[in-house]
Amino acid sequence: MSAVTVDLNADLGEGFGVWRLGDDDAMLDIVTSANVACGFHAGDPAGLARVCLAAARRGVRIGAQVSYRDLAGFGRRYIDMTPEDLAADVMYQIGALQALATAAGSKVSYVKPHGALYNTIVTNLDQAAAVARAVHAVDPGLPVLGLAGSAFFATAEDLGLRTVPEAFADRSYQPDGQLVSRRKPGAVLDDAEEIAERVAAMVNDGRVSAIDGTTIPIAVESVCVHGDSPGAVRIAAAVRERLTADGITLEAFT
Amino acid sequence: MSAVTVDLNADLGEGFGVWRLGDDDAMLDIVTSANVACGFHAGDPAGLARVCLAAARRGVRIGAQVSYRDLAGFGRRYIDMTPEDLAADVMYQIGALQALATAAGSKVSYVKPHGALYNTIVTNLDQAAAVARAVHAVDPGLPVLGLAGSAFFATAEDLGLRTVPEAFADRSYQPDGQLVSRRKPGAVLDDAEEIAERVAAMVNDGRVSAIDGTTIPIAVESVCVHGDSPGAVRIAAAVRERLTADGITLEAFT
Amino acid sequence: MSAVTVDLNADLGEGFGVWRLGDDDAMLDIVTSANVACGFHAGDPAGLARVCLAAARRGVRIGAQVSYRDLAGFGRRYIDMTPEDLAADVMYQIGALQALATAAGSKVSYVKPHGALYNTIVTNLDQAAAVARAVHAVDPGLPVLGLAGSAFFATAEDLGLRTVPEAFADRSYQPDGQLVSRRKPGAVLDDAEEIAERVAAMVNDGRVSAIDGTTIPIAVESVCVHGDSPGAVRIAAAVRERLTADGITLEAFT
Amino acid sequence: MSAVTVDLNADLGEGFGVWRLGDDDAMLDIVTSANVACGFHAGDPAGLARVCLAAARRGVRIGAQVSYRDLAGFGRRYIDMTPEDLAADVMYQIGALQALATAAGSKVSYVKPHGALYNTIVTNLDQAAAVARAVHAVDPGLPVLGLAGSAFFATAEDLGLRTVPEAFADRSYQPDGQLVSRRKPGAVLDDAEEIAERVAAMVNDGRVSAIDGTTIPIAVESVCVHGDSPGAVRIAAAVRERLTADGITLEAFT
Repeated sequence: MSAVTVDLNADLGEGFGVWRLGDDDAMLDIVTSANVACGFHAGDPAGLARVCLAAARRGVRIGAQVSYRDLAGFGRRYIDMTPEDLAADVMYQIGALQALATAAGSKVSYVKPHGALYNTIVTNLDQAAAVARAVHAVDPGLPVLGLAGSAFFATAEDLGLRTVPEAFADRSYQPDGQLVSRRKPGAVLDDAEEIAERVAAMVNDGRVSAIDGTTIPIAVESVCVHGDSPGAVRIAAAVRERLTADGITLEAFT
Repeated sequence: MSAVTVDLNADLGEGFGVWRLGDDDAMLDIVTSANVACGFHAGDPAGLARVCLAAARRGVRIGAQVSYRDLAGFGRRYIDMTPEDLAADVMYQIGALQALATAAGSKVSYVKPHGALYNTIVTNLDQAAAVARAVHAVDPGLPVLGLAGSAFFATAEDLGLRTVPEAFADRSYQPDGQLVSRRKPGAVLDDAEEIAERVAAMVNDGRVSAIDGTTIPIAVESVCVHGDSPGAVRIAAAVRERLTADGITLEAFT
Repeated sequence: MSAVTVDLNADLGEGFGVWRLGDDDAMLDIVTSANVACGFHAGDPAGLARVCLAAARRGVRIGAQVSYRDLAGFGRRYIDMTPEDLAADVMYQIGALQALATAAGSKVSYVKPHGALYNTIVTNLDQAAAVARAVHAVDPGLPVLGLAGSAFFATAEDLGLRTVPEAFADRSYQPDGQLVSRRKPGAVLDDAEEIAERVAAMVNDGRVSAIDGTTIPIAVESVCVHGDSPGAVRIAAAVRERLTADGITLEAFT
Repeated sequence: MSAVTVDLNADLGEGFGVWRLGDDDAMLDIVTSANVACGFHAGDPAGLARVCLAAARRGVRIGAQVSYRDLAGFGRRYIDMTPEDLAADVMYQIGALQALATAAGSKVSYVKPHGALYNTIVTNLDQAAAVARAVHAVDPGLPVLGLAGSAFFATAEDLGLRTVPEAFADRSYQPDGQLVSRRKPGAVLDDAEEIAERVAAMVNDGRVSAIDGTTIPIAVESVCVHGDSPGAVRIAAAVRERLTADGITLEAFT
């Protein structure tokens, strides 16, 4: 088990102007990859510059967390965009964060879609292809972080992009490997020990217990911990401790 | 005179969504450098992507036209920002356009501030230094386009940035070399032949007739023609024809 | 036929800042009701204030053209909003325009949804009910302009709102009375005389020829003419002339 | 002293979408007037609707807290707007909140400028007159809350608006009655007991101790307590308790 490594990612930089969300500094002490907002669902440039600097100082890798243009809805609302508009929005966001990361002495090392865009491109082929094409057009060497088996991964792989499957530490899974909708009971877990235990099983065994009690396979090169919920920092720390105790090396994916 | 070269620049990509401003395609057939908006005073990403592609196809160089965040005011209103906030806004915009230019097979080759920001940093040292610092942080090899003798150029040169002085084809100058305020009579010229004549004199002789009739020296590596006024295309074409007739080579600055 | 009256409405105030769309002044000389944008898909406050004043001076009635919050997409993209968020957005927009109309010596006399919101609430019950509830909460005496048979009208009538069915001068209809999608050939008519003839038949006979050649009944208290297409003013003028020639009184609905 | 009454106001509704600022519910249990944001520096419509409802339920009066259009800067940055643009922005905001207040069964009872706009119109006559004119155009019966002796009050009074002078509970004053700049030491007080004591003196005696130790007269019909600082609720509660203990009636101004 000593050779097992896994990445730990969280959404950061999700304030805007005077508004803050979560404790970025505390989370940066725990994760290995920071999905930094790009200004469309959250993140004013000065705030993003600060997060990039804080990440760079700790050697935490920076990813571009791209989103629909929707500050009022925090990127959580599906928008019926044309692929052309969506692709341009994604390129714009990646580039904006690249400049801020560069100024911080780091760089954008991967791309992860946010919120409603993340969920939409699990199945929406047109929007999935638009996001994949945008990433590829900006830099074909950028890996994308997302859900194994998604339309997004299929279109990204068609273009030759590296796809990195992630698992969610605090979310329940359906027997088919999809996430249980947040609107359903039991969708989100909140017990730090249970979550840590669950993540350890995912990483060690490649399996997770679905909401109906069946055990299903799960591909995981990165584990997503949330940064904005109450107890987020405590849960993330518990996950890190448990993985470390199991001899798993926490390390950014390559 | 055969060795004389000069750059011709114009502001392009200044629509937003359904809204258009000026005739980008016609102007791209005339100029050698396109100051492309970056989304803060104008320019939705899909529109910017189209302008970058059109510029790339014609071999017209792309510059990042950075601005205060002010779509409603088209970047024409001074905003009393902190240097930290302004620097981050400028980096964000340069990066966003870099990604779109890259996707179009080109790149951002220089930076030119827009509107109220352009005017402010002629004299405002804090904001001037913030813009210069932002450009330098993203890429110290990026030249900046602006006004000779400005605080912006002084701070940019302190950082080692290459500064490219531009003259305005259709604006009147004060005896001290500053532009006559748009609010004053005679500030803007509109006769195409007179403008072409004037530009030829600037480029050939390094001199221009100020509004009081005196002749003043003017440094000019690039000539700015406007793309959004009535008759803009005709004026720009007249300038290009006249310079070419004088044996001047129109070529992007290096 | 001398007793027949009909309202003529058009979307106005759809610029933003420096950007203009259509010729508001020309259209205000033709229509009896102006659907004025409210800032969410178009319309900076100063521009809206000018349109309200121009409408008030001509005695043209002002309606609030409410939209999804989407300047970049001009309100033409469906957004999957919660009914609570949508209702509040609609109230906000109506109120904003009420203040500007009041300052112009007029008032908001009706509400008409715009773009993707208009189309969505033909069938989406949750969003339809949210818009109806919002109008009712601001002023239960405000009529709503829309499509006969829509979910929006059903929910509006449940709340006791007056519903005013409109017909589109330049759009083709399906045999079931719905509009032919803009993406299909023949969806938009552009011959001014044909359009005028067609509108006269709608108003005089309550019938229109569907795209398959069948004649279908159509309820019409108001006719929508577009203000932003090429030839918009000419088409609107032709419709007005033809209706007047037929002895129909053009008058705002009550 | 039993006849003395004073109003207690605070800025509320200053979140945006997922972002929250301060504890609106706790503050609504303390104040008599709520300066509710209007969407330009803070406040998404659904959040504003909730604050209006919460205020209406408690019988707390609602005021429109109007601002420069600047979400990224929270309205704290001066913008060099034309009076025409500023007046329209102010009307738009007042109207938007009026609709939300109406839907909540209440109404907008006064107007208070926010942040940089508040400070600017202490001395900037053009912008002061624009704000006053906007309020008057929407409803000449609306009082304005602000600083005694300001250009804003002078222009408002010229138009016949009722002006309500406020004092700041936690801010230091210069000997000339102006606020000590936040950038200077001692500008903001944070000891709840000291603040309560100070407010009691202002209200009882019409005097306050300036930062240089001199005692100056102060006009106060309303006391502003902040809602977003650490300890805000505790300070506001201390002020309320102390005033009540002194026999002062806390009551919205009329």
